[in-house]
Amino acid sequence: MKTTVAELARILGGKVEGAGDRPVETLSKIEEAGPKSLSFLANPKYEEFLYTTQAAAVLVERDFAPRKPVTASLIRVANPYEAFIQVLKQIHTPPQRLGIESPCHVGKCVHLGQQVYVGAFSYIGDHSHIGDKVKIYPQVYIGEHVKIGEGTIIYPGVRILDYCEVGRHCIIHANAVIGSDGFGFAPQKDDQYVKIPQVGNVVLEDDVEVGANTTIDRATLGSTVIRRGVKLDNLIQVAHNVEIGEHTVVAAQSGIAGSTRVGRRCSVGGQVGIIGHLTIADDVKIAAQSGVGKSITKPGSVVQGSPAFCINDYRKCYVLFRKLPELQARLENLSVQIQKAGQDEF
Amino acid sequence: MKTTVAELARILGGKVEGAGDRPVETLSKIEEAGPKSLSFLANPKYEEFLYTTQAAAVLVERDFAPRKPVTASLIRVANPYEAFIQVLKQIHTPPQRLGIESPCHVGKCVHLGQQVYVGAFSYIGDHSHIGDKVKIYPQVYIGEHVKIGEGTIIYPGVRILDYCEVGRHCIIHANAVIGSDGFGFAPQKDDQYVKIPQVGNVVLEDDVEVGANTTIDRATLGSTVIRRGVKLDNLIQVAHNVEIGEHTVVAAQSGIAGSTRVGRRCSVGGQVGIIGHLTIADDVKIAAQSGVGKSITKPGSVVQGSPAFCINDYRKCYVLFRKLPELQARLENLSVQIQKAGQDEF
Amino acid sequence: MKTTVAELARILGGKVEGAGDRPVETLSKIEEAGPKSLSFLANPKYEEFLYTTQAAAVLVERDFAPRKPVTASLIRVANPYEAFIQVLKQIHTPPQRLGIESPCHVGKCVHLGQQVYVGAFSYIGDHSHIGDKVKIYPQVYIGEHVKIGEGTIIYPGVRILDYCEVGRHCIIHANAVIGSDGFGFAPQKDDQYVKIPQVGNVVLEDDVEVGANTTIDRATLGSTVIRRGVKLDNLIQVAHNVEIGEHTVVAAQSGIAGSTRVGRRCSVGGQVGIIGHLTIADDVKIAAQSGVGKSITKPGSVVQGSPAFCINDYRKCYVLFRKLPELQARLENLSVQIQKAGQDEF
Repeated sequence: MKTTVAELARILGGKVEGAGDRPVETLSKIEEAGPKSLSFLANPKYEEFLYTTQAAAVLVERDFAPRKPVTASLIRVANPYEAFIQVLKQIHTPPQRLGIESPCHVGKCVHLGQQVYVGAFSYIGDHSHIGDKVKIYPQVYIGEHVKIGEGTIIYPGVRILDYCEVGRHCIIHANAVIGSDGFGFAPQKDDQYVKIPQVGNVVLEDDVEVGANTTIDRATLGSTVIRRGVKLDNLIQVAHNVEIGEHTVVAAQSGIAGSTRVGRRCSVGGQVGIIGHLTIADDVKIAAQSGVGKSITKPGSVVQGSPAFCINDYRKCYVLFRKLPELQARLENLSVQIQKAGQDEF
Repeated sequence: MKTTVAELARILGGKVEGAGDRPVETLSKIEEAGPKSLSFLANPKYEEFLYTTQAAAVLVERDFAPRKPVTASLIRVANPYEAFIQVLKQIHTPPQRLGIESPCHVGKCVHLGQQVYVGAFSYIGDHSHIGDKVKIYPQVYIGEHVKIGEGTIIYPGVRILDYCEVGRHCIIHANAVIGSDGFGFAPQKDDQYVKIPQVGNVVLEDDVEVGANTTIDRATLGSTVIRRGVKLDNLIQVAHNVEIGEHTVVAAQSGIAGSTRVGRRCSVGGQVGIIGHLTIADDVKIAAQSGVGKSITKPGSVVQGSPAFCINDYRKCYVLFRKLPELQARLENLSVQIQKAGQDEF
Repeated sequence: MKTTVAELARILGGKVEGAGDRPVETLSKIEEAGPKSLSFLANPKYEEFLYTTQAAAVLVERDFAPRKPVTASLIRVANPYEAFIQVLKQIHTPPQRLGIESPCHVGKCVHLGQQVYVGAFSYIGDHSHIGDKVKIYPQVYIGEHVKIGEGTIIYPGVRILDYCEVGRHCIIHANAVIGSDGFGFAPQKDDQYVKIPQVGNVVLEDDVEVGANTTIDRATLGSTVIRRGVKLDNLIQVAHNVEIGEHTVVAAQSGIAGSTRVGRRCSVGGQVGIIGHLTIADDVKIAAQSGVGKSITKPGSVVQGSPAFCINDYRKCYVLFRKLPELQARLENLSVQIQKAGQDEF
């Protein structure tokens, strides 16, 4: 990127305060910016850095009023963070990998679309269908009868097992596993377990992102379904026959047990556990480390705790949990007073 | 599968109610069944689907009494779910992979048994022993001096490091790691840590199943041991020198710290943590998200909480935790009454 | 190892009690030792094994007084465990892998140092720099413009993505992922999310150890930084732009959310969650399964709970949580007494 403060302001529909002819060559966080950097100020926590930054220009809100002198030029915009992301997206050119590297294994009756990339040491099983512009990085395993939709990116070490389906424009990060067996065993009278065959598959719809080392088990029967636009972070467990609704976001290390259905536009914090066979309504928010033990039927609920309940109630209870020694002391004290009062009566 | 309702009933020792000559070609969940499907009704939650299902036949309990008209044929059996699993197992033919794909790396002095499968890009280190009928999928790493017992299946991306031993008829799911170094460091006076060599190994006995992306660390000395019939779900951490007793089941994302011994036939819920150097008795059940901080000596204990204690007690306490604002209000109220009573006396 | 009890005592500066000429060939845990084993007794829990062990010699503390007859020779030293580790390190010769196995992929303009090992099916992207004596096991992925410092060991299945930097003498265990995209999305008005490009990298300084299946996300801008001497256990999540200070140790399955800075010499227990944008002071200890929801500014703090607070306070509160039924009963009882007292007055 080679541009100027004034040119950036023009593109972003912003207003320059200070020199407009300063060159801008890169983007940086405000605390790390050098003299040819564009930066931004969105979180007031970081305001102090504005007065010491070496940045050429800083994106700020339209009505921002600095409390001290600023050496950087300011570009006033409606939303500094969004403007910054807009520039970031324009300058970011993802690596353009193309073609079939050698050695790789492409099975029988495999369909490879136009402009695909298949990295070395990747394995594509028989009868699989790879859409146009799909990028399969090195060392990926794709089983038999798998479908990968157009424009999807599959990072190194991902495993997608037989019969699974991945939609268009998905991103699957390194070492994620799609279609491992569900954890299904029938207990026997001799305390042993017999494995229940897991004959279903996993279906990821379009625009799904799956984090590194995340695991999504295939259904016992039917499909484990991740709907359009769902974003899963790293190290998440999605069990067999789960369904996650459109545009739901799940943070790292959460787990969803078998056959649970999570609604649309939900937000699941990190390290959350949801037990099996539940239904979670749309627009539900679950705080980090919560454990959901029963269905949440009211859309828009916000819950916390293990087991989880209404977050405001949880917080009140937790405040009192921290005051338990005090409550106990008061109880003790009352007890003494009553004792005393009782004795006084005699 | 091409059969009829009557034929299935005969095989399962069941009794047909309705047409016996309907063709059956597949198995489905009751809510998704088509006109040539066999389904089952075990959980009363799903009974409503019985009255709308398109299934050819539904397995139900011997004395089940429908509350509405049913168009599907019923097959009455002692245990519908088990009967269904029985059919599922009969029709399920796992892929029959065989032979040595190219390229793969087979080291010096490796023993490869009869009828093995070694997928492309797999690596078998020197002096390892691969039993008969073992299936090693592509991109698997097997270190040196490793032993893999007869009939074991190792999915893509599994890593089994030097000197580890895997029993017969085990299943190890994609990207699991067996035999990574234990987390052992000796703190030094300068605040640094010096690594303690981890010279032990991991031993999986027969019929063990290990989930995707699960990690089992090698012992510092001796062996980390997973006994016969143990089932580990995905993303589990088993630390160095742990021992897990026969037929114990551990749900996803749980972690067991170093040198802890878990008994036989235990059931460990998801996201449980067990600290190191403990002993857990046989037949213990640990509820999801619990943290076990001391040994559990009584067989058959059922615990919950972090730290965990008797589940019934935990639940009573948690009910009261949720009532803390109410308890506090009552305490306040009593306080006022006593205050008032005290003043009245004057 | 072929030595004698007396010779070991000489090396360790210890004093022999019993036969010094017994041969020693191996190291074992005290409960598993054979007649040619050296073992140690550090934890009093294991003292009973001293009286039944078959070991040739056992390392004990200088002033240890056995309560029963011992058949093993004793070697008295200042710190039995450290002495044992010292011997363990001397006899442990890690496998000496060297050279470039075939097939592997080495991209354009790659610098390979002296005495490196590159295992089969490994992939090194263009413009990467591999230092001297680096060992890259099979099936490793190293992206473009990656730097790996001298003497670092990278186990099978590790993925290190474009532009990441790994210091000297690091150890990265199997299937760990370094440099996956941070979990950054900008919510849109139509409930969809737009991916924020993640253009930063990950920097591991020297002497860092990263556990199996652990994930470290690249920074959105700048670097996710793991400082010198940090030890990360298995299945840990480190989000984008996190910084972990020197010699901090994190146990398995913990997660640190975006932009949080953890201090030096901290100790983070297993399954801990730390939310984003916090600052954790130096020398802080966080108990297992805790959830840290706000910055910890006081160095040396020890915390527990979710949300976490001072561990001693937490323990007092948790004791009372377990007594809630009792507290409620007392409250009930007081209530009745007051009621009664009130009625008596009439």
